Formats: sequence, structure tokens, C-alpha cells
Amino acid sequence: MSSPAFAPMTEFTRPSGRMPHELRSITLECGVSAHAEGSCLISFGRTKVLCTASIEESLPPFLRGKGQGWVTAEYGMLPRSTHTRSNREAAKGKQTGRTQEIQRLIGRSLRAVTDLVALGERQVIVDCDVLQADGGTRTAAITGGFVALHLALQKLVGAGKLPKVPVQQSVAAISAGIWKGMPVLDLDYDEDSTAEADANFVLTSDGRIVEIQGTAEAEPFSRDQFAGLMALAESGVAQLIALQRKTLGL
Amino acid sequence: MSSPAFAPMTEFTRPSGRMPHELRSITLECGVSAHAEGSCLISFGRTKVLCTASIEESLPPFLRGKGQGWVTAEYGMLPRSTHTRSNREAAKGKQTGRTQEIQRLIGRSLRAVTDLVALGERQVIVDCDVLQADGGTRTAAITGGFVALHLALQKLVGAGKLPKVPVQQSVAAISAGIWKGMPVLDLDYDEDSTAEADANFVLTSDGRIVEIQGTAEAEPFSRDQFAGLMALAESGVAQLIALQRKTLGL
Amino acid sequence: MSSPAFAPMTEFTRPSGRMPHELRSITLECGVSAHAEGSCLISFGRTKVLCTASIEESLPPFLRGKGQGWVTAEYGMLPRSTHTRSNREAAKGKQTGRTQEIQRLIGRSLRAVTDLVALGERQVIVDCDVLQADGGTRTAAITGGFVALHLALQKLVGAGKLPKVPVQQSVAAISAGIWKGMPVLDLDYDEDSTAEADANFVLTSDGRIVEIQGTAEAEPFSRDQFAGLMALAESGVAQLIALQRKTLGL
Amino acid sequence: MSSPAFAPMTEFTRPSGRMPHELRSITLECGVSAHAEGSCLISFGRTKVLCTASIEESLPPFLRGKGQGWVTAEYGMLPRSTHTRSNREAAKGKQTGRTQEIQRLIGRSLRAVTDLVALGERQVIVDCDVLQADGGTRTAAITGGFVALHLALQKLVGAGKLPKVPVQQSVAAISAGIWKGMPVLDLDYDEDSTAEADANFVLTSDGRIVEIQGTAEAEPFSRDQFAGLMALAESGVAQLIALQRKTLGL
Amino acid sequence: MSSPAFAPMTEFTRPSGRMPHELRSITLECGVSAHAEGSCLISFGRTKVLCTASIEESLPPFLRGKGQGWVTAEYGMLPRSTHTRSNREAAKGKQTGRTQEIQRLIGRSLRAVTDLVALGERQVIVDCDVLQADGGTRTAAITGGFVALHLALQKLVGAGKLPKVPVQQSVAAISAGIWKGMPVLDLDYDEDSTAEADANFVLTSDGRIVEIQGTAEAEPFSRDQFAGLMALAESGVAQLIALQRKTLGL
Amino acid sequence: MSSPAFAPMTEFTRPSGRMPHELRSITLECGVSAHAEGSCLISFGRTKVLCTASIEESLPPFLRGKGQGWVTAEYGMLPRSTHTRSNREAAKGKQTGRTQEIQRLIGRSLRAVTDLVALGERQVIVDCDVLQADGGTRTAAITGGFVALHLALQKLVGAGKLPKVPVQQSVAAISAGIWKGMPVLDLDYDEDSTAEADANFVLTSDGRIVEIQGTAEAEPFSRDQFAGLMALAESGVAQLIALQRKTLGL
Repeated sequence: MSSPAFAPMTEFTRPSGRMPHELRSITLECGVSAHAEGSCLISFGRTKVLCTASIEESLPPFLRGKGQGWVTAEYGMLPRSTHTRSNREAAKGKQTGRTQEIQRLIGRSLRAVTDLVALGERQVIVDCDVLQADGGTRTAAITGGFVALHLALQKLVGAGKLPKVPVQQSVAAISAGIWKGMPVLDLDYDEDSTAEADANFVLTSDGRIVEIQGTAEAEPFSRDQFAGLMALAESGVAQLIALQRKTLGL
Repeated sequence: MSSPAFAPMTEFTRPSGRMPHELRSITLECGVSAHAEGSCLISFGRTKVLCTASIEESLPPFLRGKGQGWVTAEYGMLPRSTHTRSNREAAKGKQTGRTQEIQRLIGRSLRAVTDLVALGERQVIVDCDVLQADGGTRTAAITGGFVALHLALQKLVGAGKLPKVPVQQSVAAISAGIWKGMPVLDLDYDEDSTAEADANFVLTSDGRIVEIQGTAEAEPFSRDQFAGLMALAESGVAQLIALQRKTLGL
Repeated sequence: MSSPAFAPMTEFTRPSGRMPHELRSITLECGVSAHAEGSCLISFGRTKVLCTASIEESLPPFLRGKGQGWVTAEYGMLPRSTHTRSNREAAKGKQTGRTQEIQRLIGRSLRAVTDLVALGERQVIVDCDVLQADGGTRTAAITGGFVALHLALQKLVGAGKLPKVPVQQSVAAISAGIWKGMPVLDLDYDEDSTAEADANFVLTSDGRIVEIQGTAEAEPFSRDQFAGLMALAESGVAQLIALQRKTLGL
Repeated sequence: MSSPAFAPMTEFTRPSGRMPHELRSITLECGVSAHAEGSCLISFGRTKVLCTASIEESLPPFLRGKGQGWVTAEYGMLPRSTHTRSNREAAKGKQTGRTQEIQRLIGRSLRAVTDLVALGERQVIVDCDVLQADGGTRTAAITGGFVALHLALQKLVGAGKLPKVPVQQSVAAISAGIWKGMPVLDLDYDEDSTAEADANFVLTSDGRIVEIQGTAEAEPFSRDQFAGLMALAESGVAQLIALQRKTLGL
Repeated sequence: MSSPAFAPMTEFTRPSGRMPHELRSITLECGVSAHAEGSCLISFGRTKVLCTASIEESLPPFLRGKGQGWVTAEYGMLPRSTHTRSNREAAKGKQTGRTQEIQRLIGRSLRAVTDLVALGERQVIVDCDVLQADGGTRTAAITGGFVALHLALQKLVGAGKLPKVPVQQSVAAISAGIWKGMPVLDLDYDEDSTAEADANFVLTSDGRIVEIQGTAEAEPFSRDQFAGLMALAESGVAQLIALQRKTLGL
Repeated sequence: MSSPAFAPMTEFTRPSGRMPHELRSITLECGVSAHAEGSCLISFGRTKVLCTASIEESLPPFLRGKGQGWVTAEYGMLPRSTHTRSNREAAKGKQTGRTQEIQRLIGRSLRAVTDLVALGERQVIVDCDVLQADGGTRTAAITGGFVALHLALQKLVGAGKLPKVPVQQSVAAISAGIWKGMPVLDLDYDEDSTAEADANFVLTSDGRIVEIQGTAEAEPFSRDQFAGLMALAESGVAQLIALQRKTLGL
């Protein structure tokens, strides 16, 4: 907050103390589930999401006989993953609109990089369960969900059921937002709740776009600001994809 | 978008026969409801959405006593608004994830241009019901929903309950997509179902962004392609806002 | 109904200003849906109901293999079709008892005049959605639903799938009630909410009865009063059936 | 109904063997519940309905402070009250449209003869649970429900909470139908499932009409046939009301 | 339980006035349902449960083709079976946890004594509906449910569909609890609501255990106290099994 | 349990290879949640349950004003905590009977050792979420849930809101079962699915009983076998309580 004459960037201090383009500490721990065909625990700082991929050798009725497989995702938050306890969706008897939005987004993101025909008539269900939430759970879920999916597909290859992993690109996701007028990367909860705008980017390893969702929380934002968010996101996703590839031994 | 000098636009024919940057015929009919405080029927070609705004002089419990009002939206499709009949959500006992996504989007878009403090402790509920669907129902709903909202707020002003309409900007929305590699504006159903990517833009009258949602349907898209979509959207929204303002007498 | 020589009809003024036996202005607009096999928009004064008939070339499991088809109906009201906004049934997660009663009534009424065996193993679903309500929505739905059904069946005949329209009679419906002790026809909302009794009559073109539902709202009514209601209804339905036939070109 | 001089009643035999105007054996057993303020077990032949009336000294929120009370009814069938077992509504998670129709009918019928203002700000809930079904459960429920209601109100009078029973008339109900072209009274299940038309009449002790519901099952019916049904019903209800009054010591 | 020579049983008085080891008056009335394959009405004092067994000659999909049948149970309470009225589960749209616990217990208890392979590929559904509740409804339901099941199986034997009743043991159930520090048998509602602990025992005719459920209501209990409860239960179940066998003519 | 002199324990090998009285490896990790007032991750071998305790300074309406607090529990399994994936309860829209049974059991167990009056008018909600399941999830949940509850209550003491932790006893739970005729302690999934009987014991630190639930899976069991199960459980719970106390520093 004290601004030395030449150092303008120092004038600006995010609640997290990070630089505008700085990711939180990201970790990826694979094979955390004894049962799932693929699994990982991904952390973006204090946000922790358990991702498991389950292979089912059959398809739901409406997808059968089309010569292709399916990848879908489900998302949930443990009731006390949040700062104050939220009601359990199973007890309320329905999933919120937010939950449904997020799980649809994860599923679309994973399908966008999977060759569903090469997958064959089977289904992979990727469950992303938030153990602890501190902002960015949906982007962590996509990034970790891809790893769990890949591990499960590797297992099919290992078992001789597929010749190679039917994935065309890596995919990862990150948020960026406008905080006090400044684009910043990877918002945590405190930053997110005071940001003017918030966007999520789902990008592939060859730099293309799978999903973009940008929302003005308080104030509409300009095209230039949006370009700033996208630049931050591209740099962030590159780092995430490098970590995924290292973790998966690609 | 930039077509080489000799490149015959004629080679490229959208299913609708429209030019890439051409909107469908858009109409706005106000005051269609005998009961609602504000209402309009908006058509984007064959897509028809009935928008009504209802004012309630009380707030739901969790919003009370905060010195501000609220604007929210609900969205529905008549069962046979679609090419083949869809099941009635009321009969299934729940709204789909898609419905919830859309109504949350409409609500956020309208709140982004409303001064909730100036609105006072009252609620406006904007219902957007699709009578006939042919692509672009959510963008029609936002564009028409703004008109219904404005009419209802005018009524409050007319009744002396508000000194002026507490709206800061106009807001409208349009879709753009990539069809056979080419950015095109305002996709109808046939175009949408064969597009490679699809994006919705919610923009204000001063050219800022309220919401962006871009989704790769088949293939990730590039940053340049996305820029092309945004350029189309800006031109489309400008036309929609001009129509809104004319309709509202602004 | 029979007024003594000197008895001034002028003494008795319905809220609507109509004569006791006078219908509201009734209009029927066909072909209003681009997608449905049959459709019409029916108005009884300010009451407007959109009726669509959808043909499905398969039957629900419990109806299969019985050598006959099925006609069923669904009913809904847009949230702001009413004077004050009602909650959306899809959002509440269930249809009210009133909704279910009405859609069962519409379905029974339409089946009563359809030759289900001649229809063959297919189903017609008639959706009746109230765009604007001002009393008499269920009778408008039956009257308009019959027109939508007939149009859809004509389409099957036109496509060579049926030799002739498998409908034995026209069917239409009207309400009558006792208002300040006097039988009156076709109650609007203001009349209905102050009536002592209310009855709905579903009658065929040969003057027979498909359904009668009479309810004392405030006070039980006499057999003679009920006879008065039935006489009014017969005259009203005759007019409605004439309009249906003219509209359908029968 | 009118049989020619020599016309052998023997030619016409109802499945039950009863005469056209003949009720089944009707019994009413009061005080069958140890807990309810009023209760009875009513039988129409093999149809058995347990009716209890519960008094609650408070009203649901939307009825409070209007200076009157309320009478409402709920209806249910035990899963094996029927010839073949039906699914339990509590397990399915919702009440059928039929159940809701019936309980609304019972509630309206009982309210039509109760002075709600004299009842004061309390509620009576009448539960009608079908222990065994053989046709006519809704009419049995109304007839028995009135007795349970009256007993509960007598208890309030006995406790000094009301000066007198706030009931203006007795109310009872019976079905009549057209079976092989002939009006017959009080259909049992076998008769009901082969009848051409079916009507339920809810009538008061002074011969007025509270509810009429007539439905053509197979074939529309004529005005004369309907008059025949009503005449049968009037005679049947007179017998039921005599039994109620005797049971209640009126 | 063992009272010292001079020991003043008189000092210890259960609310019911019964001796610690004394059952309420138990009655079993068979064949109370005209439709069910097996039925009985069982009373433990004022607790009355109607038990019906329905045979279905098909199995739910997940049980088919395993060379065995199935026995399941459902449980419900009429709304006014209780001291004060409870809400109807069908109206609330779900069964309470308590209801589900009880019906699962009844089902397990009946299956434990049934030879499911000998039963063949059919299902018996035992419905236990509480008409009046005064404590011990689940134990009454198991004891009566066994009788209804046996009667239904006898009917299959009578029809030549089974060579003999595929039941290996009788099964019955009773509660015991600790009331003012003393083990007592067969608690009624008043006793149950003031007991320190409460246990339910499901035992077979050869003295073995099918289910034990013991719960400290207020205060944990000792191993010796639990042994006392079990001794009471064994004596109580022996009496119930004798009554079952007499009723069934075994 | 009593093995004849020469009877080789070697003859008897549990699937897990453990001795009959041997617990799995048990671990307790505290403070695993950044948000919850109390939390732990408990493992019984491969079974892992995340337990969090959330304090709410208000009570649900029906508990208010009674001069006491409340402790309740919720239970859930992640979809792929199990060997094959289970459907997500939030997606199905309801909790299974098993889930409800378990969460009711956990809540009763924790309340049995808590002084609710000393707790004051606040509520503790203990969420037990199974991350990985391999038998014994409910007993792990009770044992870990007590630790989470105690930690949360310590926090209230630390904040000066309570003079001391209002807990009277420690409580822990363990399963025991009959496997090939032999009582064995702490069944894992493989053992549980082939056991003849299965029981869960919830015991306090002073050796008293809070809950006992014993179920014959295949064959009723004898009183002596049940005594064997209880003896094993007492030894197992003693070890668990020692671990709890060490972890909590008691």
C-alpha cells in the first residue's frame, strides 16, 4: 500500500498478497482412492477437490447404439467445506442451480478433449467433490477432473481395452477477475467476494478455448479489461497444464 | 470475417440464407399482458418469448432490511415451443439444469443495470416464457426482459413511488457462433445445432460487458475466432438497444 | 332466465355488463404454432389459452399393445397470467391439485369424442397453457383443445396415416353460475369470485353430456337453479360448437 | 327406471343383484378412534372408510386473523385396500391427481354446511382413510366425514368452547351411474368399471346441491339420463341423512 | 425381575398398572381384508395394526433371474393414529427416517425366517398400517406381519403353487425398556415416553435372535440391565409365538 | 470364541488375516478442516470418514426456548467411496433409508453423552462424510464424530462461551459379526458381505451401552453368540476410547 516512486505494481496489494498474475500454490496428488479407476486430490491453495473417475461398461439408454461413449461429471460440496455450513443437497432433496451449472460445465470441458468414438460404448463419470472451499472450486474441478479421467483411461489402455488414451488435448481451467479495477489471476474467496467481475477460462494445451464465462458482479467491464483477464488466464493455464503433464508422465 | 477480395460471399451460405452479420427480423410488442406491471412479446425470427415484469412490494425474508430491492427472473418453455415436444417441467417436478442456468443469467444481467438501492425495498420478478423456440431464446429473454422491467419501473414512477427509473444503462443480448469455420450472428436452431461453437454476449448501451458465455460444441476455438464473435455481437447488440430505446421512447 | 313481463332486466347488472345468457367475445386463431401438429389460440374475452396438439407415434408402456391409441392433456398457467403473480409450478416442484384436476378433465373430455381404436397406436398430447386468465380457463382449454386435436388429426389424414379424422362429435365447454341468485353464463373472474355457485358443462354437438361439475361456493343451490344453469350452458355450447365447426371448415 | 308393466326386472340384473334404486348395506360405527376428537367407520357394502376429525386450536398462517375457522380434509387409500395392490403414495413421494381431487371435494362439501365464522379461529382436519375399497369411496368419505366432524364439534360444545354445533345442514353423498343404459344407484367396483357413465352427488338435508360431478366413461349421456341419476341420488341421500341423524342423535 | 421375598411389588407401579413382565392384552384377527392374500388385525392393548400380505407373481427388475423370491414390507401410520395428529407422509412427499427404519426392520425380520429359494420367483409385500398407536407399533407389525405372510403362503400352497409353506421358523417381536431403573416388558406410549432405555427384540420360535435394537433414551444402560431386558423379551415372544401358532393352526 | 485345546487358530483365517479380536489399524487426524469449529479424519483400515462439527448460535424453531441446546448429525457417502460407484443422493433427490438410519444413530449416540442443558441454546451439527468405504463406516463416523464434537466444544470453552466441555462420557462404536460361525471384531467389507450376522455397539467410557443393533443377515444367531459379540465389542471400544482420549489430550 506504500507506493515507492517507480514501483507502481507494489502500490497494489491483493488480499492474498499475491502478484496479479500469480497462482496460488497448486498441488496434485494422484491415486488417492482405493476404488476409483482414476483419482486425484487437487489443491489450489486452501481449495481442495477430490476427483474420481469411474468407468462403466454400459451407457444410459438414450446414448446406446450410437457407436460412441460418454463422459459426464457430477459436482458437490461437503456441507462444511464452506466458511459457514451450507445445507446438504441430499437432505434438501435437490441440487442448486449453481451445482448443476458447474457440473454441466465440467462435463462439457472434459468431453471437448475426448474422442468419444474412440472411447467406445462405455461411460466415464467424473465426480468432483469439494472437501474444502476457498474460491475457484469449479476450475480446480476441471483441472483435477482431467487428471482423474486420464488415469482411468490409462487403466483401460493397460487392460488392453483401448489401444491408446482417447484424449486429444489436455484441458485445464483458471479464474481471473477484476479487483479494484485491476485484472488478477486465480481469485480466492476473499478476493472473489470483493471483485467487480469474475471470469472462468477453460483452455486446451494448444491454446484454444473450450469455455469462457465472464460475469460482471457489480459493474459491467470493458473489452480491454476482458482482454487482460484472458491474457492472465492463458499464462495460468499453461502452468496448470505443465503440472498435469508432469503428474501424468506425459 | 475478413473475406479475401474475390472470395464470393455466395460460396458461403448460412442455413438461414442470412449474411454472417445479419440479425433475424426482430420485433418487440409492448403491453401484451392485461395484468403485469410491464410486459412485451419479443420475436427473433420464429423465436417468440413472452416477458412480464411483476412488482411485489415486499422482499423474500433473506433480502429484507438491507436497504435495497431485488430483481430476479424465471424462465420456462412451453412443452411444444420446441420442434418435438419436451416434457413439462412442472410435471417432472423439477427444472432442468439448463433452465436454472438461463434464469440465473437473465437475473444477473438485469440486476447489472439496475440501481437496487434506488429501487427501494421491493422486488421485480421478470418471467420469460418461450412460446415458440427457434434458437436464441435466452438472448431474446434478456433483451425483452429488460423492456418489461423498464415498463414496470416506469409505472412505479408514474404512480409516484419512484422519482425516476432506477436503471443505469440499457442491456441486451445476442448469440454468435462459428459455423463451418465462419463467425455468424444470431444463430437460429438449424444453425445452432450444426455450429462448432456458440457464444452469448450480454452488453450494455455504453458498450461494456455484463456476461460472456462461450462454449465449444465440437471443437475448441481460437482467440481470433472469439474476437470475431465479439465484434459481431457488438454490432448486433447496438441494433437491439436502438430498438429497445425506440420502443421505450427513450 | 324467464323474466316476468315487467321485470326490468335493467335492474340486474352483471359486473361485466353482459346479459345473463351472453357469452364474452370468443375468438379462435388456428395454426399459431410453427412446430405443433395442431394449434390454436382461443380467447374468451380477456382469457387467452394457447392449445397445441402433439402427435407421438408411440405410446407409454402401460398403453402399448392394446390395439388403440390415447389422447391426454396437460394444463398450465404462466405465472403472471393471473391478476397477481402465482408461483411457477416447475419451481415449486409440483403441480397443484387444481392443475391436476383440470388436466384430467380436459383429457377425459377429448377422449370422450375420439375413437381411440381408429386412432391407432399413437398418442396425441394436448397442451393448454393459459397466457392470460380472466375466469373460465378450463372451459376455454377444452373448447380450444378440441380444435387443436382436430387439426392434428387432419394432418394425419393428410399424410395418409388415417383414412378419416377419428372424432365422433365436436365437444366444447362453458361455465355458468349463480350470481346474486340469478343464473348467468360464462363468468369472468370478477363474477366468478362473487358467485354463489359455479358449474362447468362439457357437451357434445349432439347435445349430450360429457362432464358436469357443479360446486356451491357459498350456499347450496336448488335443483331448479341447476336446471337454469344447464339451459344457459346448452345455449352457450351451441354457439361455441358453431364457431369450432366454422373454424375447422366442417 | 320406469319399467313397463310386464317387464321383467329379471331381465335386468345388476352385477350386485340389487334393484336399480337400492343402496348397499350401509353401516356407521362411531367413536372407533381412541385419540381423535371425532371418528367413525363407515361401510357401504365392502367399502370401508375410517374417518377421523382432529381439532387444532390454531390456523395455518394464511388463514389467521380473518375472524373465522377452517375445515379441511385429507384422503388416502391403504395400499391393499384395492383388488390388486397399489403403490403407497408416501413411498412414491406424491399424491395422485385423483387423491387430490377427492380430498378437495370432501373439504368443499364439509365447509359448505359449516358456519366457519361460528367455528372460531380453529381448524378441523378430517382424515378419510380407505381400509377396503369396493367402489364409492369418495361418497362414503363425505358421508362418514360429516359424522366425524359433527362428533368433534359436539365435543367442543361439551367442553364449553362453542355454544352450539356450527353446522347448518347435514350433508351426505352417493354415486349413481348408467349401467347397460339404465340408471342405477350406489355402484360397487364391478358395476363402476363397466358403467357407461358415473356421477357423484353431494346433497344437503334440505335437498339442495353442494356438488355434482358427472362423467361419461364411454359414451356421452343425455339430459334425461342425467335427470334419472339425480332422482336416484336424492332418494339415496335421504336414506343416508336419516342414518347420520339417527347415529348422531339429532 | 426377581423380586425378593418381601419385596413390595406394590412400591413399583408402572403407568399401565401391569406387572413388569406382563404383556398387554394381545389379539389377532385373521382374514380382515377382502382383497389381500393374507391379512390380520393385531392389537397390543390400544395399539392396532392392520397387516396385509400381497403376492405378486413377478419381481422388481434387480431381483429377477436369481432363482429366488423376495419378501418386503412397508409401514405407515394413519395421521390420527397418534395422540395428536401427525402430518400425512403422502402429503409431505416423503417418508420419515423413522418410517424407513421400521419398514426395513420388518422386511429383514420376515426374510430371516423365509426360504426365499423355495418361495420361487415371486414377491410378497407385507403392508403394516397403524390404525391406532399406543407404543410398540413396530413389534406389533412384525408379529402380525408374520401371520399375514403365513396366510398368504398357505394360499399359494392351497392353489398348488407351492408344495409347502416356505417358512422355517415363526418370528415375533416385543419391546422391553428400563423404567425408573426397572426392566419392564411391552411398553405402552406413556411408559415409552418416560423410559430411560428402550429395546426391541425380534426372536424366532427356536429362541434365536433375528434383530436386537437397544437405545438409551436418557442415560446409557448397563450390561446387566440389558440382560434383564432380553430375559423379559424371551418370555414375551414365547407367548406371542404361541398365539401366532394357535391362530394359524400350526 | 472358546477354541478347543488343539484347535488351530490357523484353521480359521479371516479374509483380512486378522485375529478374531483384532481391530484394523485405526488413525485419527484432527484439525483437517480450515473452516469447521471441530474436525477430524478417522480411518479404520481403508475406511476413511471426514467428520466436521459446526456450531450454530441458534436453534431450529421447534427447539427454541426450551433452555437447552441440540446435537445432530448428517451422514453421506461420496459416490465413488464404494467399490462400484453409487448414485449421488443429491442427484436422486432423496436420502436412502440406510443414510437416514445411520445419521439418526450418530445423532442419538452423540446426544447420549452430551449435557444439552449445559450446552445452552445453540446447535452442533456433526457431518460425517465417507471419503472411502470398506465396512464399518457408521462406527467410524460415531467414533470420529465424537472427536469433532469435542474439539468444537473445546473451542467454545476457549472462547469463554462455556465454562467447561459439556460432555459426560466419551463414546465410541465398533462392529462385530459372526463369520463362519465365529465371532470376529471390526468387519471390513469382504467380511461383512459374507458374515452370518452383524452387530454395532455404541459404548461409553464407563462401559455402559448407548446403542446396540444386531442383525441376522442369513441365519438367526444364538444368545451365546451375541454375548461373544458383545465381549469383543467391549474390548474394541476400550481401545478406541483410549485413542480418542489421547488425541483429545484428556
